[in-house]
Amino acid sequence: MRFFSDNAASVHPAVLEALTRANRVDTAYDGDALSRSLDGAFSDLFETEVAAIWVSSGTAANALALAALCPPYRGIVCHRDSHIENDEAGAPEFYTGGAKLILADGAGAKLSPTSIAERIDAIAIDVHRVQPAAISITNATEYGRVYGPADVAAIGDLAKARGLRFHMDGARFANAVVYSGASPADLTWRAGVEALSFGFIKNGGMSAEVLVCFDTSIADEIRIRRKRAGHLASKGRYLAAQVLALLAEDRWLANARAANEGAATLAAAAGARLLHPVEANEVFLRAAPDEAAGLRARGFEFYDWADGEIRFVVSWDQPPPEVEALAAALARL
Amino acid sequence: MRFFSDNAASVHPAVLEALTRANRVDTAYDGDALSRSLDGAFSDLFETEVAAIWVSSGTAANALALAALCPPYRGIVCHRDSHIENDEAGAPEFYTGGAKLILADGAGAKLSPTSIAERIDAIAIDVHRVQPAAISITNATEYGRVYGPADVAAIGDLAKARGLRFHMDGARFANAVVYSGASPADLTWRAGVEALSFGFIKNGGMSAEVLVCFDTSIADEIRIRRKRAGHLASKGRYLAAQVLALLAEDRWLANARAANEGAATLAAAAGARLLHPVEANEVFLRAAPDEAAGLRARGFEFYDWADGEIRFVVSWDQPPPEVEALAAALARL
Amino acid sequence: MRFFSDNAASVHPAVLEALTRANRVDTAYDGDALSRSLDGAFSDLFETEVAAIWVSSGTAANALALAALCPPYRGIVCHRDSHIENDEAGAPEFYTGGAKLILADGAGAKLSPTSIAERIDAIAIDVHRVQPAAISITNATEYGRVYGPADVAAIGDLAKARGLRFHMDGARFANAVVYSGASPADLTWRAGVEALSFGFIKNGGMSAEVLVCFDTSIADEIRIRRKRAGHLASKGRYLAAQVLALLAEDRWLANARAANEGAATLAAAAGARLLHPVEANEVFLRAAPDEAAGLRARGFEFYDWADGEIRFVVSWDQPPPEVEALAAALARL
Amino acid sequence: MRFFSDNAASVHPAVLEALTRANRVDTAYDGDALSRSLDGAFSDLFETEVAAIWVSSGTAANALALAALCPPYRGIVCHRDSHIENDEAGAPEFYTGGAKLILADGAGAKLSPTSIAERIDAIAIDVHRVQPAAISITNATEYGRVYGPADVAAIGDLAKARGLRFHMDGARFANAVVYSGASPADLTWRAGVEALSFGFIKNGGMSAEVLVCFDTSIADEIRIRRKRAGHLASKGRYLAAQVLALLAEDRWLANARAANEGAATLAAAAGARLLHPVEANEVFLRAAPDEAAGLRARGFEFYDWADGEIRFVVSWDQPPPEVEALAAALARL
Repeated sequence: MRFFSDNAASVHPAVLEALTRANRVDTAYDGDALSRSLDGAFSDLFETEVAAIWVSSGTAANALALAALCPPYRGIVCHRDSHIENDEAGAPEFYTGGAKLILADGAGAKLSPTSIAERIDAIAIDVHRVQPAAISITNATEYGRVYGPADVAAIGDLAKARGLRFHMDGARFANAVVYSGASPADLTWRAGVEALSFGFIKNGGMSAEVLVCFDTSIADEIRIRRKRAGHLASKGRYLAAQVLALLAEDRWLANARAANEGAATLAAAAGARLLHPVEANEVFLRAAPDEAAGLRARGFEFYDWADGEIRFVVSWDQPPPEVEALAAALARL
Repeated sequence: MRFFSDNAASVHPAVLEALTRANRVDTAYDGDALSRSLDGAFSDLFETEVAAIWVSSGTAANALALAALCPPYRGIVCHRDSHIENDEAGAPEFYTGGAKLILADGAGAKLSPTSIAERIDAIAIDVHRVQPAAISITNATEYGRVYGPADVAAIGDLAKARGLRFHMDGARFANAVVYSGASPADLTWRAGVEALSFGFIKNGGMSAEVLVCFDTSIADEIRIRRKRAGHLASKGRYLAAQVLALLAEDRWLANARAANEGAATLAAAAGARLLHPVEANEVFLRAAPDEAAGLRARGFEFYDWADGEIRFVVSWDQPPPEVEALAAALARL
Repeated sequence: MRFFSDNAASVHPAVLEALTRANRVDTAYDGDALSRSLDGAFSDLFETEVAAIWVSSGTAANALALAALCPPYRGIVCHRDSHIENDEAGAPEFYTGGAKLILADGAGAKLSPTSIAERIDAIAIDVHRVQPAAISITNATEYGRVYGPADVAAIGDLAKARGLRFHMDGARFANAVVYSGASPADLTWRAGVEALSFGFIKNGGMSAEVLVCFDTSIADEIRIRRKRAGHLASKGRYLAAQVLALLAEDRWLANARAANEGAATLAAAAGARLLHPVEANEVFLRAAPDEAAGLRARGFEFYDWADGEIRFVVSWDQPPPEVEALAAALARL
Repeated sequence: MRFFSDNAASVHPAVLEALTRANRVDTAYDGDALSRSLDGAFSDLFETEVAAIWVSSGTAANALALAALCPPYRGIVCHRDSHIENDEAGAPEFYTGGAKLILADGAGAKLSPTSIAERIDAIAIDVHRVQPAAISITNATEYGRVYGPADVAAIGDLAKARGLRFHMDGARFANAVVYSGASPADLTWRAGVEALSFGFIKNGGMSAEVLVCFDTSIADEIRIRRKRAGHLASKGRYLAAQVLALLAEDRWLANARAANEGAATLAAAAGARLLHPVEANEVFLRAAPDEAAGLRARGFEFYDWADGEIRFVVSWDQPPPEVEALAAALARL
C-alpha cells in the first residue's frame, strides 16, 4: 500500500480518454485548438483574464515564473523548506540566471508577513547585498498546511508595499482550494498573486501543469523562455487535453477532495502524533523506528522524513480500504 | 491535406495503448520499471552499453547534451541552418551558460570535415577568441539530407583529431537509419558520436525523446541537469512507455519508412524542381507563387520556405492517397 | 618600434600625477569625491544629464551595457568583425545570460541601416527564433573607420523604428570624435545612442574606462551588475582620477589627435596598398610576406592580420620619428 | 579619524613608484615581463609551483576561483556571514552559472569540520537536492578571526574525504599570516587549499589582487574566464607592478603587521566589550548608542554593525596617534 508520494499515483481515466480523443493531426506546438482554449478556460475558472501556459513539470512552471518575476541580480524570498529551495536541483537559479533564494521561516513551511519582513529587513540596502525582488509561497505547503485567502492577502499586501512580485507554487493548489473552501480567484490574484504554478500531475494528470499568469504582461516573455527551456512541446495538444479533462466536471476538485479526506482520516487516527495540522493530503507524524518498522511490516510504504518522523501522502486514487487499514494501524500505535 | 510538419502528426495507437497499460501506481520520477529498462533497451539497439535518458522535447535533448559537452566559455560548431541555431530560441546558449554557436556551411545543411576545419581554422588560438569544444550535426538534416556512416565517421575523425566532442541531433534519426540502411551503431558511436538526441515525437510518439549517451560518463551530470531544467517528469513511466512502444516490433523503423517512401514518391514527381536530394521525409522544391497558390487551392497545406521555395513534410501517418494526390499535382506543375 | 597595439602604449604622465594626488584616505568603492564627480563631468562633456560609471576594461563596459539593454533570450545585432563577437571571449554571452550575437556585414566593419535591416528581416518573427533586442556598433570600427553623426543617426532611426536599443563601443571614441569633428553629443545620444563604452585606456589611461548611460534609467541596474561582476573597485578613486586627468585640458582629444595624425601620415605613404580608408589610428594594408619581413628587419613591429595583410596601430605616445621612419619605409615598398 | 574600512586606506608609496617605473611601452594584456614574472614570484613565496593570476578585485578573484571549482548545478559550502554570501551582490552565482551557496555556522564567521559536516550531512544525496562541490573559507574571517594551519588542514582533510574542492578567500590573508606566524604554504596548499584569493588592495595596493592556483590544472580555464569576465586588463603590467612592489621587501607583511598591532592595541583597551577575539585588523565591540555617539563626537569614524555593536578596522597606514587616541577613548567608555 503506497503512501510514498502523489507523484506515484495513476492517471485519471478521463485524461487517457482525452489523449485518445486528441489523437489526430493538428497544428504543432501550442497552435492547436485545445492549447488555444486554455486561456479562456482558466480565465473562466479564475473570473479574470489570465494567460494559461502549459508546461511539463511543476519545476518548470516555478522556474519560468520566477525568471519572469526576478532579475538575475536579485533574490526570491521563500521558505527554508520550500520545494524551490530543496527539491528542484537549483532550477530557480538556472532559469533566473543566478538569482538568490532568500530563506525565511515559519511553522509548517508557511510564511507570514512577519517572518518575511524580518528576513528582508535584515538586508542592508546597498549594492553589495542581493536585494529581494519577489516572494514565492507554496499552497498547500510542503508540510501540508494551507494558506487561506486572508493569509495570502496579508503577504500580497506586504509584497505590494515593498515592491515585490508574488508567486504561488500550487503543486497542490487543488488541495488548498478544497480545504479552504475559497474560490480560486480569492486564493490567488484577488490576494495579490501574480503568477501561479497550477499543479495537475499529482492530482490525476500525466505530464501537464499550467502556469497561470494573472499579470498577463509577463506571458509573452514566459512563452519565449518556455521554448528556450525546451518546454514548448511540439505536440502540445496532448498536454492541453490532459488539463482540460481534469477541469471538466470539476474532476480536479473531486480528486483533491478524495485525497484530502483520506489524509483527514489518517490525521484523526494519528492524534497527538501529528507534527503539523493536516489540511491537505500529507500527514507527518512522530514514530519511533520500531513503530515505523511495524507499519512497514504490515505493508505500508512511506518516507522517513527526519529522525523519528515519517510522512504519508494520500493520492487522488488511493483505495479507501488502504486508508482505513492505515488509519487503524496508526490508531493502534 | 497536411504536409506542414511531422510535429502535426498523430500518435501511434501502440503508444496510446502503452500509456493505458502503464496506468497504475509506480515509483515516481525515473525510478519505475519502464524507465529503468531504457538503458538496457537502447544498449541492445546500439550494441554497446549506453545511458538512455528520456526528456520531453528534442530541444531539451539537444541542449542537455551540449551543456555536458561544452563549457560556458567555449563553442559548438554547427551548420548555419541547423535547428539548434535557428529554431530553439537560444536553448543551447541557455543550457550551456552562454557558449557560442560557431556556424559552418555545407549544401543541404550538411557539414563536412572540410567545411568544419575551414571554419575553426579561422579562429586564432588565444584567450580572446571563443574556442570550439564540440561539433553538432543533424541527421537527417534540416533539408532532409542524410549522413551515412562514412560521412559521420569522417567528422568523428576530425572531432577526435581536434579534441572536440561530437553530438548528433537525431530528431529524424529514424529516417536517417532507414535511408542509409546502416545500423544505429554504425551511424553513431562507431563513427565517433558521443551523444545522440534520438527523436520519437515526430515519428509517432507523443511527448518523449531519448538522449542516448554513448559516453556514459556524462550521464550522471545530464540527469542532474535534466532535473534542474524541469525535465525530470514526476511520472516518468508515461514517457518511457511511449518510447518502448515505438521500439517494439520496430515500429520506429516502419513509421520512418512510410514517411520516407511518401517523400520519395513526391520527389519522383517533383523532378527537376527539387532543391535538395530527398533522402528522408522532407521535400523542398521550387514553385512560383501562383504554382504554390494553385496547390493550396487543391487542398494541400505546406510551408513557404523562402522566395519561390516551398516545403512538404510527409508524416508517418500520412494517408497514401494524400501522397499520391500531391505527387500527381506536383507532376502536373 | 612598436606598432602592435595602442594597448601597449604608456600611460599619460598626468594620469600618474593624478593617482599620486588621489593617494589619501577616502571613502571606499565609488563613494569618494572623484567618483562622485564623474556624472557631472560627463554630463558637461555630453551637454545632457548622463550617468558615468567607471569600469576597469572595455570588455566590461560593453558587456555591462549589453546586459542592461538585451534580455537573455534575445539578440544583439553587431558586425561580423566586431570586438564583442571576436575578441571578448564571449563576455556578452556571459553577462547577458546567453543572448545571441546576430552578425551583420559592411565594409570596414561598419554597419549601415541597410545591412542591419537585411539581417534582421531574415529572422522570422516567432517564438522559435531569437529576436533582436539591440544594436551595437563600434566607433571607430575595428578597421579604423569612423561613423559620423549622420551615420550614427541613420542607425539610431532604424533602432527606434524597430524598437531596438542602441549601444556604441567607443574603445576608440576619442579618435572618432577627432576625425569626425563632431561634438560628443552629436556622435552619440543626439543620434540615438543609449549607452557608450567610452575608452580611455588605449588613449593614455591605465585601467579605467567609463560606461556612459544616456538613458539614465539603466544606471542603477548597471551599478548592481558591475558589483556582481567584480568590477566595483574598492578604491574607486584611483579609477576616477585617471579619467578626470584625461578629460582635463582636453588631453583625451590631444592624445587621439596625435595618434590619428600619425596614422594619416602612414596612410599617405601606403597609398594604394591601403585596405580601408584611414580615419582613426589604425592602418591596414596589403603586404607580401617578404615585404612584411623586410619591414620587420628594419625594426618595425606589427601584426599579420590575414594572408598578405598587415596592421599598424599608432599610439598616442608614438614618437614622431618612428612614424616618419615607418612612413618612409612604406613609401619605399 | 577613519576606522571605517581598510578599503579607504591609501596606497603604499612603493606601489605608486612601481607604477611610474612600469610606465613604458610593453606587451599588452598579460604578456609583459612583470605579469609573466608573477608565477615565479608566487611560486617562490609558496614554496611550490603555482599559477598566479592578477585580477582587479577580490570579488573577481573569489568568483573566478569558485567558477572553476564548482559546476553550475552544485553548491559551495561557506559561512552564513561570509563575504561571498553577503557582500558580492551574487557574484559567485553569476560566475558559476547559478551554483548555490550552502550556508554553515560557526562563531566569528569561522567554519569547522564539524559545522561543515553537519550542514552537508543534512542534504539527502539525490538528484533533487543541490549537492556540494566545494568549500570556501575566509582567512582572516569577516569578524577578524584567523584560521591557523591546523584549522585549515582539518577542513582540508574533510574536503578531501568528501571529494570537495577547497578555496580560501584571503582578502586579509596577510593579516592571517602575520597573526598565525605560519608560512604562506602551511596556511594554504599544505593544508589542502587549492585556490587562494590573495588580497593586496586592503593592504596597501591600488587595484590588483592575485588569484593563486595551487591546483595549476585550473589556471587555463581561469584565464579564459578572466577574459570573458572583462578582467583581463589590457595594460596588465600596471597590475603586476603593484603586487610585486608589495611583495618586495616583505611590505605586505609589514603593512599587515602594522594593522594587526593597531587592532591589538584597541582590543586591549576594549577589554570585555569585545565581541570576538581580535586576531587580525578588525575590532568588533559592544557599545550602547550613546557611547557610539560619544566616540563619533570625538572624531572617530566607524560602522554600526548591528544593534549595540560597532566595528573598527585598522588600516596599514593608520597613524599610530589615531590608534592611541581611540584606545584611550575605548578604555574610558
